[in-house]
Amino acid sequence: MIGIFDSGVGGMTVARAIEQHCPGLPLIYFGDIARTPYGSKSRSTIIDYSRHNTELLLEHGASIIVIACNSAASVATGVLREQYPVPVLDVVGPAVDQAVQVSRSGRIGVIGTRATVRSGIYERSIQAQLPSATVLSQPCPLLVPLVEEGWLSRRETKMILRRYLYPLRLRQIDTLVLGCTHYPLLKHLIGPRIGRRVQLIDSSLAVAQHLHHYLQDHPDLAERVRRSGQQSRFLVSDCTGAIRQLAGKIFGRPIDLETIHV
Amino acid sequence: MIGIFDSGVGGMTVARAIEQHCPGLPLIYFGDIARTPYGSKSRSTIIDYSRHNTELLLEHGASIIVIACNSAASVATGVLREQYPVPVLDVVGPAVDQAVQVSRSGRIGVIGTRATVRSGIYERSIQAQLPSATVLSQPCPLLVPLVEEGWLSRRETKMILRRYLYPLRLRQIDTLVLGCTHYPLLKHLIGPRIGRRVQLIDSSLAVAQHLHHYLQDHPDLAERVRRSGQQSRFLVSDCTGAIRQLAGKIFGRPIDLETIHV
Repeated sequence: MIGIFDSGVGGMTVARAIEQHCPGLPLIYFGDIARTPYGSKSRSTIIDYSRHNTELLLEHGASIIVIACNSAASVATGVLREQYPVPVLDVVGPAVDQAVQVSRSGRIGVIGTRATVRSGIYERSIQAQLPSATVLSQPCPLLVPLVEEGWLSRRETKMILRRYLYPLRLRQIDTLVLGCTHYPLLKHLIGPRIGRRVQLIDSSLAVAQHLHHYLQDHPDLAERVRRSGQQSRFLVSDCTGAIRQLAGKIFGRPIDLETIHV
Repeated sequence: MIGIFDSGVGGMTVARAIEQHCPGLPLIYFGDIARTPYGSKSRSTIIDYSRHNTELLLEHGASIIVIACNSAASVATGVLREQYPVPVLDVVGPAVDQAVQVSRSGRIGVIGTRATVRSGIYERSIQAQLPSATVLSQPCPLLVPLVEEGWLSRRETKMILRRYLYPLRLRQIDTLVLGCTHYPLLKHLIGPRIGRRVQLIDSSLAVAQHLHHYLQDHPDLAERVRRSGQQSRFLVSDCTGAIRQLAGKIFGRPIDLETIHV
């Protein structure tokens, strides 16, 4: 199965994009809602949790791991690749590839949680490919709670977005990476506020497209996953009505969330 | 020592109030920042964490437990009182006593996290004492992240508060319980927005006053705590710069936070 983990429900935007780009492949998703958010936690705690999540997915039959959480991807990808004998894809790399592709001026903005921005992963990865790039990062810690509240079109959300995006606008970026899997749910507000000329890079979509190509390049692995005969499963370490509602909103259908103890 | 636990840093408003009302008594504080927030988690998860936190405080020498987290107090107080052989005080009871005391009209508002409001603990406890009371509860899930961001006077915080408080204003409460230990940090914004005639009940202050009286009634226990010769300690399950800053703001001095693994 295709294993996907996230700190919560946001990674379901990745699961949904994978479902659309890799149809017929069973997914095993784990959302660590009991310990969400990762974005405000320390590096070592995020690495511990990421290891735990990976082991859980392997036990449930994953033969490839997608880190759908930007905070986890930014600090734990290297560790997981060293420790586990399966391919580990992360949500950062593909978004960086696309940003470098589409940016003309090399002025690239990145929005994310505090942990993602503090890690400097986007900056380093973009500059590794495009040394002349100017990367402007903006932590947006309130966006995750706003999305989780379902405040997807409220005036307060718009004001907070405007405040977060203003410094990026001012510095005339031409590309903006949505460096958190919750943010695709705010795309309709981000676009008009950052300006029409700015290209938005959705990291959830980017990793799904990357996985699609990866499986084309590794047809044996794709075939093994397809033939496993498993059904997609969505595990969470805790669940409330608000979470169920948000999952349903992301998939456009009710999602059966299985609660497991961590 | 006086053991105090909270889901994070908010309970430090309780620790601070206890320090002021019970001077000279050593505190052992635990803030479960690695697993914060509790307010959006399920009942059984909150109970598990509360048991764990209590055992940790007992191991570190607590002879009395104060549940400084409204979400934990609202679902776990009974369980902890049954299971552990020490007095367990919680942040809900004393605030309810004060609200019932000061309300003239019996129209009492309560603001808190989703978990606290969903538990119905304030409603039940107020009506047990004052059956004629009308209790109006309003979940305010965005206030904790706003406080943790340090947005204590921003326009967005004011707008969100106005939105949350509007239904309570409309229904003409005369008393408002701040049912979350983060909220005292927003008191200066809540007062003018709910209206001058409304009495605010600060649950952090109320539990500190209650503990003061409890120790007067149990001088042996107070003496034992005082003579332990211990220094106050502040343990957290995770730590970042933002947390350290908020702790300093609450105490008005730098606080030495010791990180322990949970």
